[in-house]
Amino acid sequence: MVKRYLTVTSLTETLSLLRTGFTCTPSREIVPLLRSIGRVTAEPIFARYSVPEVHLAAMDGIAVESQETRGASEQHPVTLNQAVRVNTGNVVPPQFDAVIMIEDVYIDHERFTIRKAAPPWQHVRPAGEDIGESEMALPSRHLIRPPDLGALAAYGITEVPVLTVRIGLIPTGSELVPHGDLPAPGQVVESNTVMAEAMLGTFGARCTRYPMVKDEAAQIVKALQRAVDENDLVIISAGSSAGTKDFTAEVIADLGEVLIHGVAIKPGKPAIIGRIDKKPVIGMPGYPLSALTVLREIVTPLVHQFGLPVASFGTVDACFTVSVSKDIGSDEFVLCSLGRVGDRWVLSPLSRGAGLQMSAVRSNAYLKIPAGVEGYESGTSVQATLTVSREEAERALLLTGSHDPLVDYLADLLSQKEVELHSTHVGSMGGILALKKKECHAAPMHLLADDGDYNIPYVHKYLPGEDVVLICVTERQQGIVSKDGIGFDALSSHTLVNRQRGSGTRMLLDHQLRKNRIDPLKIRGYEREVTTHLAVALAVKSGEAEAGMCVYSAAKALGLRFIPVASERYEFAIRHEHLEDPRVAELCDTIVSPGFKEILDRLGGYDTRETGVRRVLT
Amino acid sequence: MVKRYLTVTSLTETLSLLRTGFTCTPSREIVPLLRSIGRVTAEPIFARYSVPEVHLAAMDGIAVESQETRGASEQHPVTLNQAVRVNTGNVVPPQFDAVIMIEDVYIDHERFTIRKAAPPWQHVRPAGEDIGESEMALPSRHLIRPPDLGALAAYGITEVPVLTVRIGLIPTGSELVPHGDLPAPGQVVESNTVMAEAMLGTFGARCTRYPMVKDEAAQIVKALQRAVDENDLVIISAGSSAGTKDFTAEVIADLGEVLIHGVAIKPGKPAIIGRIDKKPVIGMPGYPLSALTVLREIVTPLVHQFGLPVASFGTVDACFTVSVSKDIGSDEFVLCSLGRVGDRWVLSPLSRGAGLQMSAVRSNAYLKIPAGVEGYESGTSVQATLTVSREEAERALLLTGSHDPLVDYLADLLSQKEVELHSTHVGSMGGILALKKKECHAAPMHLLADDGDYNIPYVHKYLPGEDVVLICVTERQQGIVSKDGIGFDALSSHTLVNRQRGSGTRMLLDHQLRKNRIDPLKIRGYEREVTTHLAVALAVKSGEAEAGMCVYSAAKALGLRFIPVASERYEFAIRHEHLEDPRVAELCDTIVSPGFKEILDRLGGYDTRETGVRRVLT
Repeated sequence: MVKRYLTVTSLTETLSLLRTGFTCTPSREIVPLLRSIGRVTAEPIFARYSVPEVHLAAMDGIAVESQETRGASEQHPVTLNQAVRVNTGNVVPPQFDAVIMIEDVYIDHERFTIRKAAPPWQHVRPAGEDIGESEMALPSRHLIRPPDLGALAAYGITEVPVLTVRIGLIPTGSELVPHGDLPAPGQVVESNTVMAEAMLGTFGARCTRYPMVKDEAAQIVKALQRAVDENDLVIISAGSSAGTKDFTAEVIADLGEVLIHGVAIKPGKPAIIGRIDKKPVIGMPGYPLSALTVLREIVTPLVHQFGLPVASFGTVDACFTVSVSKDIGSDEFVLCSLGRVGDRWVLSPLSRGAGLQMSAVRSNAYLKIPAGVEGYESGTSVQATLTVSREEAERALLLTGSHDPLVDYLADLLSQKEVELHSTHVGSMGGILALKKKECHAAPMHLLADDGDYNIPYVHKYLPGEDVVLICVTERQQGIVSKDGIGFDALSSHTLVNRQRGSGTRMLLDHQLRKNRIDPLKIRGYEREVTTHLAVALAVKSGEAEAGMCVYSAAKALGLRFIPVASERYEFAIRHEHLEDPRVAELCDTIVSPGFKEILDRLGGYDTRETGVRRVLT
Repeated sequence: MVKRYLTVTSLTETLSLLRTGFTCTPSREIVPLLRSIGRVTAEPIFARYSVPEVHLAAMDGIAVESQETRGASEQHPVTLNQAVRVNTGNVVPPQFDAVIMIEDVYIDHERFTIRKAAPPWQHVRPAGEDIGESEMALPSRHLIRPPDLGALAAYGITEVPVLTVRIGLIPTGSELVPHGDLPAPGQVVESNTVMAEAMLGTFGARCTRYPMVKDEAAQIVKALQRAVDENDLVIISAGSSAGTKDFTAEVIADLGEVLIHGVAIKPGKPAIIGRIDKKPVIGMPGYPLSALTVLREIVTPLVHQFGLPVASFGTVDACFTVSVSKDIGSDEFVLCSLGRVGDRWVLSPLSRGAGLQMSAVRSNAYLKIPAGVEGYESGTSVQATLTVSREEAERALLLTGSHDPLVDYLADLLSQKEVELHSTHVGSMGGILALKKKECHAAPMHLLADDGDYNIPYVHKYLPGEDVVLICVTERQQGIVSKDGIGFDALSSHTLVNRQRGSGTRMLLDHQLRKNRIDPLKIRGYEREVTTHLAVALAVKSGEAEAGMCVYSAAKALGLRFIPVASERYEFAIRHEHLEDPRVAELCDTIVSPGFKEILDRLGGYDTRETGVRRVLT
């Protein structure tokens, strides 16, 4: 029985141990040429024959003996005794050593007359011009690209020995159901080995996903021994922590040795490095983003150690938009949305939490906060690592502020115009502040002012004298969502789910409560905050709360009842200087497009009569 | 009958015509989730259920009613009436709304006592925390990465509708044999559609390679009509020029219309843009590098117009090492070797010629010389477009100078150390000049001086006072290669193949001719120049010449006879300041490695007793 997990090892030491503790000899496999793209050669590849094999005509014309053409000129045309008609690519017969272009030949009764001498080997592609028989076409460890593949085909190669790493993936956990099955409450779809296979497969690894194993040590031992026998590297998914049902460390120790249990990274701390039969065995934590971090930071360098190329997208210097603090001692990896606003890159963290796969989906970069750093102040200049190409990151449009379900649909429409909408839900007030600091392109907001108007007084207050345009996206209905049709008046006798402070919906609720002289602190669940309309509706649907305030479309999407409270103006605030930005221009065009109107009509609860109306503030 | 090809269209106009002349609606196909990596979604993807579906424990501990924990403190421990043991990931039963970590619970006879109140929803992952039922997980046109794939698996998605473009590829040409067959002299392996499928497939296109068609208009018409019916885009390979056997334009005109015949690019000029049934039909020239250029510069943007992402590696500013001139009016694309020498990128063109596929294989970048430019002086600062990742380009080691077959084997050994050797064959003198201009890391040379020593006097003369190290690679035998064992004395009565001016081998030959008072101009073929030892041997093997001077290993590789003439010192000249460069350090280590010695012994004609000996010049 091993229950260490007492001391964690730094990432640097972990990687160093991987380098010194394992030989990492790759496997090789033979693949058909057409399937070799993106793979690396396991050995040098030699041409099977010369290309071309014989001398070929490089032009349409006649093949000649160059000696016979000597002295030919405009004044002294020469009629040739020996010459034959050839087209580009035809064999130049052995007795000839030059080709004359057909345009320069006078033909009469199959006799050729020329007015210019041909030097030897003019317009002839000599045998072996491209490559010689036995010549090396590719060295080993060459990453095969499309033109390489064309060349190999031309040189007679039909199969290519390429490097691979055989990786065994063992999913463990009694709560797992296979991908494709509908999980019962408390069950989880086994998706981590799916992600691992997808990631490691792109590097050229050959992954085998073994059947899922329940949390029973004896069964895991059996699966592990088989996987070690059949692979160069084994990854056990989940069970790597130190709980009562975590057997990974114990099982590795049973068959070999545990070298490291616990790596100072977050997420991903409960990682294990073991060795069985001289092969590396990795214990990968079960939370999806912990698994992702271990795959990226530990398994990827290990696969590279085996000789496989692991592409990366590089880094950019960016301005980090929030303040974060962390414990000293762990490298922390924060998934982020990255975009270029004006002339600088802006980096905003997505919701943390090792279970939030959507944060990985929404991110296009991540920030590594090194172990020795306690955190960053907002506005710190940091180095972001891209998880998409730089070109793709250049297409990001940052929308920061109030959330509405329509934003996802706007993202969908914009995606078709090659604009990637990254929206951060920080509420209307958060959006105004982001706009003030030039940390977003557009700030969605719906802030009711004392004069009954929306948004303008707030923009004036926080961005005084600045050129800002408010573009109306829609007027929308806010109301009370519930299973039973609870109205605003009955709110205080039910459990509420609330929105976060600074969100316009929270402010609307507070405004209505004040107006109706209801003491918010007497409402059960008033402190329970979520950050989106759909999260409010979900909390109601799941029974966590009985009522909440959200837009109609969120209630409708989950089949819940909705009692309207107010109609409000949902606008995007955009700095005038950004209107010319092609991404912002596409956003504005999309808002007034018929396709978007159609979607709003379908989602319900949106009034589009004001859609596209601009209000200019200076 | 169409035989236009009279006026060529600029690349800019061609691309503009493609944008305005075609609607380019992509196709869609459903792929299993695990095969969706790197593809783009054809429509938004929604979660099938909330994740998690119910409230889950985020810690190992006990589920509690938060209300019951109120007031608990160190001074006033509370023993709970209602609580159950839960592990991380377990369902929190409906009556509970918080979890307390097991470390904070005192357990006695299945009764739980706590010393700290739990706020509502502490350590609970609420239903829908990651994603809500019906929420959009991915917008359309989203490029699917491994974490997306993991998320989709978790959200119950098993198949993904993705975009594709159905591309029909029709190889034409009576001289073609299919890839895998051994071509007879004058036959060519059909490799261009293989390259096209490899390249376009990586973008997510679904390519169909149709059977090869002979150069007969009626047959091509039949194949083309079928391909147009079955695809969104059709590419006809070869036959796009204006020769007697070029039917592509005629056939397109027969079924639809030829919009452009001849694009002002080099290579690739004989490209055709046609339209049949509103679909684009591209005539792709037959020379491999012409085909590559058309695929990259015309077909790739067209595929992008259909909505598929086309990745690129970006550009770098580089110093172009040679002078080139070109005709005004065409965009010219020059394949190059790119490497970082000291603190700048250096770009050297590879052999031009549309048939030289090895130039594409050897290149890691290309240079576009715009139509309006007449050429560049050597040393001009240009923008190079990468064809490998920037990381890979950073690994390039530039070797410029004299050629020896051993260089390919050195490249193979270095590749295993992640150093990419790019060698340019410009002869020993060319190497010295490249070293002088800091345009390479190492210059291979074997220059016999009047005093009988090698190389040192030349380095002194051209790089006076500079710190240079000469590292002996090997002493090697030069001699006369022939089929019949021709010796040096008999040279003047046979046809010669020579090496280029400035190469050490040429200088050695001239030295020997002078010494033996043979008039070079009386030797047939003295003017015929090739640039490598293997090319000399090949010319002899093919019958183009009867004799030539080369190293023993080249003669041996082709099974030819070899009469030794001289033994010479083959050294690499390296600037002292570059010795610390990790790539150069690997080069030096590899030269003295046992593996390299073994290869030299196997190749033959190399004496390794001096290998690794350094001679320092200042």
